[in-house]
Amino acid sequence: MKIVFASGNKGKLREAAEIFEGFEIVPISAFPAWTAPDENGSTFLQNAVIKAEAAAKAAEGQIVLADDSGLVVPALNGAPGIFSARFSAEGTDAANRKKLLAELSGAGDRSAYFLCTAVLIFPDKTVIAAEGRCCGKIIGTERGENGFGYDPVFVPDGYEKTLAELSEGEKNAISHRGKAFRKLISRAVDLAVITE
Amino acid sequence: MKIVFASGNKGKLREAAEIFEGFEIVPISAFPAWTAPDENGSTFLQNAVIKAEAAAKAAEGQIVLADDSGLVVPALNGAPGIFSARFSAEGTDAANRKKLLAELSGAGDRSAYFLCTAVLIFPDKTVIAAEGRCCGKIIGTERGENGFGYDPVFVPDGYEKTLAELSEGEKNAISHRGKAFRKLISRAVDLAVITE
Repeated sequence: MKIVFASGNKGKLREAAEIFEGFEIVPISAFPAWTAPDENGSTFLQNAVIKAEAAAKAAEGQIVLADDSGLVVPALNGAPGIFSARFSAEGTDAANRKKLLAELSGAGDRSAYFLCTAVLIFPDKTVIAAEGRCCGKIIGTERGENGFGYDPVFVPDGYEKTLAELSEGEKNAISHRGKAFRKLISRAVDLAVITE
Repeated sequence: MKIVFASGNKGKLREAAEIFEGFEIVPISAFPAWTAPDENGSTFLQNAVIKAEAAAKAAEGQIVLADDSGLVVPALNGAPGIFSARFSAEGTDAANRKKLLAELSGAGDRSAYFLCTAVLIFPDKTVIAAEGRCCGKIIGTERGENGFGYDPVFVPDGYEKTLAELSEGEKNAISHRGKAFRKLISRAVDLAVITE
């Protein structure tokens, strides 16, 4: 069974392909009608829905998957949150991490969590969404080469390694996106809108 | 089982109470933390999600229901659509109907459909949404005293009466909101997140 994923992020596509095992994950870029929408929602769910609806329009008749994810840091009043990918002026992973470490320098509370809201839209317009979290803390220097985004500065609770030091399989087992995706699959199977 | 409905519209509340038989439908106004959000989404689903999330915040720990509904008229390029409740400058039901009839005067194609997107958010942030449609046509003069909104000028396919001439029970059996709500209940039961 085919699922069209509203993302061009190679890291997310790999993560989805590994977790949605048995499904064919097709990037939305395969559909010429696709244009990335303006993610102007004010929550993760709203942005995920905006992406999913844009993908459903471009890939009519297909099951579409979209997610919106980010890092939430209580000591920064929830920032970067939905602005995680565009936290710094440059908007690159490296610049975003640099800004995060600068803003957290000297902070007593370095706890943080990744949050992912994942959405499936079916051809009959039924929608299911689920949330996944990965709790941990932000360390002071980058470590590891895997993953993307804030992974090199995030150490999950119960681990010594950063997310970027874990293998893809280890990360998917505990990541916010992994949890949200697995919850979504299980809900979809319950609904019998997906058959495994 | 209690469901908090993110609406202050008495007509919708009655419709929900009749369809969600066996559930206690609580208006969101019962929660002092509630403030109606800015419905600035660009689709029915986005606006329904905006309302549902605002309600979930005000009524933490509760199951919340929200919907966004409107009339879609192909001859008017889909208008009034998500702007159905604020189609006219006055924004009253009577003024909205008057504007609709004026814009459709002389139109060859008077077909139209009501669309409802209904959303449930559960305490664990699982979201289910479903869509319902009621197809029919817009007549030239108002008829009937029941219902609200555009009901007095809308004759459903297969009927001679307007929605405003039908009883509440008859309307709920065929209405867009009735269909979306029933689909939502059935999905929620499949998911075992609601027990009837």
